[in-house]
Amino acid sequence: MNIGCIGLGKMGEALAYRACMAGHTVWAFDEDEKKTKAVMQHGAKPCNSIEQLMAECSIIWLMVPAGKIVDDVLHQLYPYLEDGMTIVDGGNSNYKDTIRRSEELESINVNFIDCGTSGGVSGREKGFSLMIGGKEEVYKSLIGLFHAFAAPNGFCYIGPSGSGHYVKMVHNGVEYALLQSYAEGMHLLHDGYFKDLNLTEIAQVWQNGSAIRSWIGELLQEVLAAKPDFENIPGGIGENSTGAWTQEEGKERNVKTPMLDEALAIRSWSRETGGNISTKLVALLRKRFGGHQLLEK
Amino acid sequence: MNIGCIGLGKMGEALAYRACMAGHTVWAFDEDEKKTKAVMQHGAKPCNSIEQLMAECSIIWLMVPAGKIVDDVLHQLYPYLEDGMTIVDGGNSNYKDTIRRSEELESINVNFIDCGTSGGVSGREKGFSLMIGGKEEVYKSLIGLFHAFAAPNGFCYIGPSGSGHYVKMVHNGVEYALLQSYAEGMHLLHDGYFKDLNLTEIAQVWQNGSAIRSWIGELLQEVLAAKPDFENIPGGIGENSTGAWTQEEGKERNVKTPMLDEALAIRSWSRETGGNISTKLVALLRKRFGGHQLLEK
Repeated sequence: MNIGCIGLGKMGEALAYRACMAGHTVWAFDEDEKKTKAVMQHGAKPCNSIEQLMAECSIIWLMVPAGKIVDDVLHQLYPYLEDGMTIVDGGNSNYKDTIRRSEELESINVNFIDCGTSGGVSGREKGFSLMIGGKEEVYKSLIGLFHAFAAPNGFCYIGPSGSGHYVKMVHNGVEYALLQSYAEGMHLLHDGYFKDLNLTEIAQVWQNGSAIRSWIGELLQEVLAAKPDFENIPGGIGENSTGAWTQEEGKERNVKTPMLDEALAIRSWSRETGGNISTKLVALLRKRFGGHQLLEK
Repeated sequence: MNIGCIGLGKMGEALAYRACMAGHTVWAFDEDEKKTKAVMQHGAKPCNSIEQLMAECSIIWLMVPAGKIVDDVLHQLYPYLEDGMTIVDGGNSNYKDTIRRSEELESINVNFIDCGTSGGVSGREKGFSLMIGGKEEVYKSLIGLFHAFAAPNGFCYIGPSGSGHYVKMVHNGVEYALLQSYAEGMHLLHDGYFKDLNLTEIAQVWQNGSAIRSWIGELLQEVLAAKPDFENIPGGIGENSTGAWTQEEGKERNVKTPMLDEALAIRSWSRETGGNISTKLVALLRKRFGGHQLLEK
């Protein structure tokens, strides 16, 4: 297929890379010219402008930060949109924005698909998990691209516009709680009754046969194996908006979310105070899986 | 090696089975004669009494419920104990009890090893994760048995007596928080903005490429695929003592455990009120991985 990728950060670059490797024709644009040039090595065709990209493609995949930037980019695309074109938003947009955008675009006969994307930087090689919303026939027309981008069995059609981003939002809320849960346990082992436990070996044995084995556990083992100097690691945990949105959604739907509430509260506390061993571990895990830099002290 | 297994419940039976399969000679005893007879099919040698078992073995592996029962069984073993014998406690004993028992037994030249065991009922085929405390030279003498019982790379020496049970206790605290975190997310998807989402497919796509893929996630998918009738499932979540012990330990060591605190609080609330979708899911997950029966309504 012929696809235009706009936004070539960590996730956009991975999309362009995987689509090229799967034999699709990829046209690529980023405001940062260096990033546009970098994907040439995979065989993608660099574009100097959105105009050039739109002349070549009728399927556009956005991988840009959520919020106003998505609207800005869509605004730039409007002059070039034609009946039957398809735009995919692969970022972490708020589902309410997605519903609004899909209505606007569908009113001019342009298809809009929301694609929640999980997997972090290692998804570039292993493939991602894709949660996809929008019209089902449009979803079906893109299956070749989802195959290229996803891990085996790693994509599914969720439902109407916004539902892909909605499920990804809740996924992120779960992720916040999982990260804090592992980190809390390791903090207790670090400061507990038995001194100088080998946390790396413990993380490893938890990965082999135990009830709590997981991908986060694998990263935990790797983070600990690097022997972090806890004294000097900044303990503030950054975040995007998806955790807070999930919390709001819980309130709106009258669903208790105590685990997420605590995970968010400790992130906020960590940024004010510099945190503790558990928040330092979460910050290191976020860096490891998502490439999120540690916050300045 | 020649080993005596006392306690042939779900975990003890799995121990006897795996030790037999690995070619060890297994002498087995349970107060329930049916259970003793059942392990004969694996090639284990049934014993009618502790006296008979103790005449055959110098290594005894206990798989009995934590607490007074462990002391009662040890009391029954005392008349037959001889210099250099080894007792392994594979259950969820409190580490303080383990330290006391190891001191008592080592004062009469009997070795005592604590072996925290994770993996649930499916560990019988896949092998378990073992967290092992006690004297290192005694640990080394038992490595052949640990290999038989553990998943590949699924055992490690933690440290002095009690440390194996300590790490298993904290592991369980993490597990409580993880279970509740997944269940909370699914509850929100069940009752959220989008109606009738296919939760089984969502759980599946989260298992393939996403940041939150895990063994608990695999079980979640299985539990949801069975189309639970949430209306009629009792929502109280049972527990053993390890979660509460971990919480106490956090207080004693001045380590915050907000995630575990919430997971315990909602379990307690679930038993009083009948819970909600999230607690019903946790109850189903516990049944699926540990064979824990649902609580009566």
